[in-house]
Amino acid sequence: MPTSEGSVLRPAVVALDVGGTYVKCLTVDETGVLASDSVPTRAADGPEAAFRVVCEAATAALGALPPTHTAAGIGLAVPGTVDEHRGVCVHSENLGWRELPVVERLAAHTGLPVGFGHDVRAGATAERRLGAGLDAGAPVADQLYVSVGTGLAAALVLDGRLVVSGGYAGEIGHGGATTGLPCVCGGHGCAETVASAAAIARRYTAATGTTVDGARDVLARATDGDAVARQVWDDAVDVLGALVADLVRVTGVAHVVVGGGLIHAGDALLTPLRQAVGELLTVHPEPRVVPAALGGAAGSWGAALLGWQAAGVDLDPVLTGYAELLRPGDGPAGAG
Amino acid sequence: MPTSEGSVLRPAVVALDVGGTYVKCLTVDETGVLASDSVPTRAADGPEAAFRVVCEAATAALGALPPTHTAAGIGLAVPGTVDEHRGVCVHSENLGWRELPVVERLAAHTGLPVGFGHDVRAGATAERRLGAGLDAGAPVADQLYVSVGTGLAAALVLDGRLVVSGGYAGEIGHGGATTGLPCVCGGHGCAETVASAAAIARRYTAATGTTVDGARDVLARATDGDAVARQVWDDAVDVLGALVADLVRVTGVAHVVVGGGLIHAGDALLTPLRQAVGELLTVHPEPRVVPAALGGAAGSWGAALLGWQAAGVDLDPVLTGYAELLRPGDGPAGAG
Repeated sequence: MPTSEGSVLRPAVVALDVGGTYVKCLTVDETGVLASDSVPTRAADGPEAAFRVVCEAATAALGALPPTHTAAGIGLAVPGTVDEHRGVCVHSENLGWRELPVVERLAAHTGLPVGFGHDVRAGATAERRLGAGLDAGAPVADQLYVSVGTGLAAALVLDGRLVVSGGYAGEIGHGGATTGLPCVCGGHGCAETVASAAAIARRYTAATGTTVDGARDVLARATDGDAVARQVWDDAVDVLGALVADLVRVTGVAHVVVGGGLIHAGDALLTPLRQAVGELLTVHPEPRVVPAALGGAAGSWGAALLGWQAAGVDLDPVLTGYAELLRPGDGPAGAG
Repeated sequence: MPTSEGSVLRPAVVALDVGGTYVKCLTVDETGVLASDSVPTRAADGPEAAFRVVCEAATAALGALPPTHTAAGIGLAVPGTVDEHRGVCVHSENLGWRELPVVERLAAHTGLPVGFGHDVRAGATAERRLGAGLDAGAPVADQLYVSVGTGLAAALVLDGRLVVSGGYAGEIGHGGATTGLPCVCGGHGCAETVASAAAIARRYTAATGTTVDGARDVLARATDGDAVARQVWDDAVDVLGALVADLVRVTGVAHVVVGGGLIHAGDALLTPLRQAVGELLTVHPEPRVVPAALGGAAGSWGAALLGWQAAGVDLDPVLTGYAELLRPGDGPAGAG
């Protein structure tokens, strides 16, 4: 749109990736990052406080836009059970949200179109369009994305379309067992009690009484010959292998991207994981199991793409610009 | 098209549901069944012999069309690993087919358009459009279909679209375990070695030395207090429960149709199956687990719908006619 000098303002999107601890805020235009920030979610102060943090982060980012730019839309990625089609956060344990009409409320607050998605599904879309889901420059038609961090969840892209199923698609972290450690979901022995990054640290501490600095620390101890750490790590890989094999058996998809905090372990995770998956598949072709490329920024980039879509902007030139920015080796500068 | 008397010939479809033992052949017009037949597949005589049986069945059905009708298309449903998009049977253990371009060859043989699908996916489509996938007369958007017969496989409909994934979607009967009975696929402990109708009979015979007349016989013995039969039946239900729970956890879909030969057991299967599934789900809403409505004719009706689609005929009036024919209580007359 024209400024007072008659020049044209460039469109921008404010992307919000809401986590249980921080709200990551990424402001982008069609060629790259304008600003990034993160603010504490304040989930402990209750569901409305957390939603207020999101609104305030949007307001601050919009207010900080350079005078050369104008906001075209908002992108919002949220954890938990999220129904993209209805624009509703059905249930987020970490945020305390239940049936919260986040799209309607954030659109009312900002006066802008809001693109909305589940954080893991948004990350999966970003990986598929900009990262580990690219095959010779084109996004794979079918992709499984498994995010292993504090929690554990998957996202399914089949024939180029995200599977949502009312928000319950890919919730593989819970259920499937009846014995084992109690889980936050009320079940027992859920994959999240063994194979999430948080569970790996927790199980090691429970077995040894030693506090550790996350799953990374447990892996370091396993590598140094600590038998308990080795067992905890191997248990996690076994459970993840079974989950990935189940995903492949059900969907038939052969391209698996593993993301979330645990992927920092690299080959210490991927090599035994690929082996475990291979042993559990008989008629299916062995899938490619590849690490995520966007790291902790996948959700933010996914939210940015959702924002552009909501703004009605043609994604192709945007993707071209971002792909250049995010090409392997450069890392997602300013967005982590 | 006009006859010599100037009247118009009515279109018909020849639907072929190819099994390891029989090829079922169903000829339909837009209002119902014109003829049905089944011929031995002769799979033991080799892959080409089996394909010749299919071609001859088509020729015979086309030759037997009443003079009031003209063939508009062929529908073909095939077991194994089937790639609908390429028109190829990738691999069928029972038929000995590998990379067989069935659509191209049957179209060349008949001179007619050929609609092609996996037998379980075709059955799933038929159930969704004409049977247990109808909800207040409309097909559910998302449906899981589990077929438990000689083999064990699933079909996924998500957002109204069948998932194919190169033919590997829903192949839940194989893989997922590394210990247990050897399986035809080369693996061990596959679900098909415990929970298929064939496995139930086989396991009972292996444990007792007593030959039985299929899974139905094992269930009857279990009901009469035979402890081995009870254990074999319960093991099968447990494995099926875990499979259905995995399907629901991965896809998030809450409408599950159970078909195949084992569904003749009715509530003796469904009641404990629903309980097993419910125990394995924590965050997902408990799915509706309902019996298939079309029985052994699901594959034939699915093939018929594929034939109409290949013929370019609008499916809606056809579906209306068939739904009337197949309404609950009437059974799929002439098509089993």
